[in-house]
Amino acid sequence: MKKISESAVRRLSLYLRLLRVVAGKQELISSQELAERSGATSAQVRKDLSLFGSFGQRGRGYEVDDLIETLEGILGLGRRWRVAIVGVGKLGSALLGYRELSQRGFDVVAAFDVDARKVGEKLGGLDVSDIDSLERVIREREVEIGIITTPPEAAPDVADRLTRAGVSAILNFAPVKIGGNEGMVIRTMDLALELEGLTFALTSSRDGERSHA
Amino acid sequence: MKKISESAVRRLSLYLRLLRVVAGKQELISSQELAERSGATSAQVRKDLSLFGSFGQRGRGYEVDDLIETLEGILGLGRRWRVAIVGVGKLGSALLGYRELSQRGFDVVAAFDVDARKVGEKLGGLDVSDIDSLERVIREREVEIGIITTPPEAAPDVADRLTRAGVSAILNFAPVKIGGNEGMVIRTMDLALELEGLTFALTSSRDGERSHA
Repeated sequence: MKKISESAVRRLSLYLRLLRVVAGKQELISSQELAERSGATSAQVRKDLSLFGSFGQRGRGYEVDDLIETLEGILGLGRRWRVAIVGVGKLGSALLGYRELSQRGFDVVAAFDVDARKVGEKLGGLDVSDIDSLERVIREREVEIGIITTPPEAAPDVADRLTRAGVSAILNFAPVKIGGNEGMVIRTMDLALELEGLTFALTSSRDGERSHA
Repeated sequence: MKKISESAVRRLSLYLRLLRVVAGKQELISSQELAERSGATSAQVRKDLSLFGSFGQRGRGYEVDDLIETLEGILGLGRRWRVAIVGVGKLGSALLGYRELSQRGFDVVAAFDVDARKVGEKLGGLDVSDIDSLERVIREREVEIGIITTPPEAAPDVADRLTRAGVSAILNFAPVKIGGNEGMVIRTMDLALELEGLTFALTSSRDGERSHA
């Protein structure tokens, strides 16, 4: 399989989300319409989809249901995924209550915390487990994806334990680099980095205005 | 200014974060070293930086302090930014307590909620303001960036109010499309989309394994 850039994968996710909105309302969608709704160009849409052999028909566009199925297959969403959240502070419990996850195919089947007062508490329909039982619970519940929402100092150790327990992928919200063995898929979310995307746009658009003056 | 892709901006942010870690410890850094630490190739690093006229010196690399200053300038981080958080539920209060924001140049100067029990409460050193006072407080405190962490049904209206009150950019965490006038910079965070990046990688690497069998 060709190497696909992270931003191309993001666009595929976005197309899929848009297609799900129109599914049942229309049978066909043009690259132009997908482009308008996703902020890409229609050439970009066609290029992204052709990478995976989905070409649409000139003058007709893509079959919505077919394209949904294709994109779900590419993105690994033709099935549900079992997720654990480690650290149920504010961010962790916000994620536990985030219904969008389940709607998009992610079942949170375990939550862990180090705080004895939280262990056993019911959050989002789930009992919080003691972090000491992490390896056992991860194996018993066949967790595939771990989400780390611990303080930064705890995150690297949690990542190692998740890896050893057999998790295949980690989404890390702690502002710290975490390791993992070969073949492990790790993505670190950096909220300040998202804000820097905004300030870049604000700054470059102002530079643009100045250059027109 | 040339149009820079969102993923290139992300990489610049990442380089900057890495440079700040080594600042004071080393004067020079090679594209190879930046690449290793950021997961890019060294050719990609050189290309990204050359877009902005920063070329380094063959065999020596880049001056760390210079490159930090250049990247801060490009990303609009040569100054601090004034931020408001609208909606102090779990996610909003997690962000209020997220020290990394202030360390990276973002000052949260206002927080709003619709819930009378939260208004006046002190969170992260800040009094929560009544959503009814949004326009006045945004203007008085000269807020430039709004972060929306309300439930999805409230988000579009909040975005309109932030826009009218003069905010220049919005980071939206609600899983819903929000509007904004021309020139407004809007980025919607989609946590399920981040997970889909993981499942894509898991699925395509498994396909790869199968193809070797």
